Amino acid sequence: MKKLINAPENYVTEMLEGLVACHPSLTICGDSQRVVRRSAENTPGKVGIVSGGGSGHLPLFTGYVGQGFIDACAIGNVFEGPAIDSCVDAINAADSGQGVLLLFGNYGGDRMNFEMASELVAMDDIVTATVLGNDDVASASPEEASKRRGVAGLIYAYKIAGAKAEQLATLEEVARVAQKAVDATRSIGIALAPCRLPSSTEPNFQIHDNEMEMGMGIHGEPGLWRSELKSADETVAEMLNLILADLPLAAGDRVSVLLNGLGATPLEELFILFRRANQLLADRGVEVVAPIVGNMATSMEMAGASLSILKLDDELEALLTAPGVCPFWRVG
Amino acid sequence: MKKLINAPENYVTEMLEGLVACHPSLTICGDSQRVVRRSAENTPGKVGIVSGGGSGHLPLFTGYVGQGFIDACAIGNVFEGPAIDSCVDAINAADSGQGVLLLFGNYGGDRMNFEMASELVAMDDIVTATVLGNDDVASASPEEASKRRGVAGLIYAYKIAGAKAEQLATLEEVARVAQKAVDATRSIGIALAPCRLPSSTEPNFQIHDNEMEMGMGIHGEPGLWRSELKSADETVAEMLNLILADLPLAAGDRVSVLLNGLGATPLEELFILFRRANQLLADRGVEVVAPIVGNMATSMEMAGASLSILKLDDELEALLTAPGVCPFWRVG
Repeated sequence: MKKLINAPENYVTEMLEGLVACHPSLTICGDSQRVVRRSAENTPGKVGIVSGGGSGHLPLFTGYVGQGFIDACAIGNVFEGPAIDSCVDAINAADSGQGVLLLFGNYGGDRMNFEMASELVAMDDIVTATVLGNDDVASASPEEASKRRGVAGLIYAYKIAGAKAEQLATLEEVARVAQKAVDATRSIGIALAPCRLPSSTEPNFQIHDNEMEMGMGIHGEPGLWRSELKSADETVAEMLNLILADLPLAAGDRVSVLLNGLGATPLEELFILFRRANQLLADRGVEVVAPIVGNMATSMEMAGASLSILKLDDELEALLTAPGVCPFWRVG
Repeated sequence: MKKLINAPENYVTEMLEGLVACHPSLTICGDSQRVVRRSAENTPGKVGIVSGGGSGHLPLFTGYVGQGFIDACAIGNVFEGPAIDSCVDAINAADSGQGVLLLFGNYGGDRMNFEMASELVAMDDIVTATVLGNDDVASASPEEASKRRGVAGLIYAYKIAGAKAEQLATLEEVARVAQKAVDATRSIGIALAPCRLPSSTEPNFQIHDNEMEMGMGIHGEPGLWRSELKSADETVAEMLNLILADLPLAAGDRVSVLLNGLGATPLEELFILFRRANQLLADRGVEVVAPIVGNMATSMEMAGASLSILKLDDELEALLTAPGVCPFWRVG
């Protein structure tokens, strides 16, 4: 957990400057300079889509700003939600007069600040709707599904809402498909090793050399259980079972699969995990469409992976596979 | 360095199976099943491009098989070169009768096996040419530049040779631009923490908690010096100086920059490093074109980064920015 950084207090600013220097399709904006928006002008008549969250999860959240994805993103300090003024700036950046969808993970601080921001922009007659990502099945029981946290599966909602907004659909319609994507997505993570916040000298959790934790959250929130490190095949089978207990799948169903790395777990291992998930789904007669394997939502140098499944219908599949481009995901 | 794997002896096979299951544009072929080729039929009249190397460096090498990149790739065990028969199978897979460029990193075992393979396919009247990536400035002095190892900068040669081959250029011409790309590329790496081979219980090198090593190779080959961990800005300035000592740049020059992660170093830190490299080049009046920041050539969970610079002229820039698509790099 050695870090190649400068002063910790400059971590987010310098990271954002590097991001936009590399990707000219992105621009930093807002008084706080903690908003990333598309460099292109807003499309007249298009609903805007805004997300936000803490730093330390790249490509989440700012890396998904792009055509057919989100339009602007408010970003906070590492593992801290964005400030209210950043949320306001992001909404203003995304607004073209057709309303703005606020699409972010279900975390208390983020919810509170986006709610306050939506009240503030309402005074300027900007209409907003809110959809919360809550895909992490380990974070609350099915009976309390609304308390679940959002993790990597949120990017499916970005893609699907983004594609709908490109069709110049109404805010109500864009929010509907975003909620539909959230409702059809489940995720679970497995953690092997912690990360360290730039301002800290200690890891964000402790775990023994031969242990893994099933269901740990992306900030190190406690999971379901710890065990000795299991094989890749056993691990992904247990992850899949935990998802299927919550999102039953039958032969003939079509799903997308996201096998996401948390940061330090090599791409080789992600493909070994994906291989088995794909086999297990095929054994059930479930077809995998447009799978994604890679580091799409991380926790800096945390080791581990998450599995997300999006159950498709014709509408979701068409939106998932519609053209779209942002720095870290490109379709068509 | 905990691993989410199954039996170590199945590591490469399962990784390849997962790779092609996720990316249908790729197919495993060859008697040894250690070759990845494009699923599409070969383009008639096009020179084939083959690469190869050891496993454990994804997306290198197999992830760069695609249209406008390499056509087939022979892959060995972790950190071991591909077998001769795999090299032969890869050449056969890529051949359309116009000859095949062998484009791989300058490592003794890889060189020997590809040389043997080229003699074997010559008996079937397949003409080959060989270009070796040797971008790592830390691995030998300028006087012995031909002894330098190939590292991340090899992907620039893939892109440039691949674009030239798409124009249905001759083998001589494709080899010429590949060599030109190699000659214009320099890289240097910094290592912070080791990886562990799947078959081993020990890290591949030892380094203290507050140390870094400048110039270490991607298999842990010794570098130039060790020091206490420095800031990102200091580190990248020293990396850039080592490159510029070997590849002088003047105001008005145009370059591409690849800020590559070795595996466990977060994307946030790569952007912080890139930010400073970009500033330092701008201070010299050098313009950065089509930069790349990400994990493009890794050593599993090794922590650290490498900086590669490709000095452009009009021909190289046109080929670098020509359309091309493979699973991990897409242009146009």
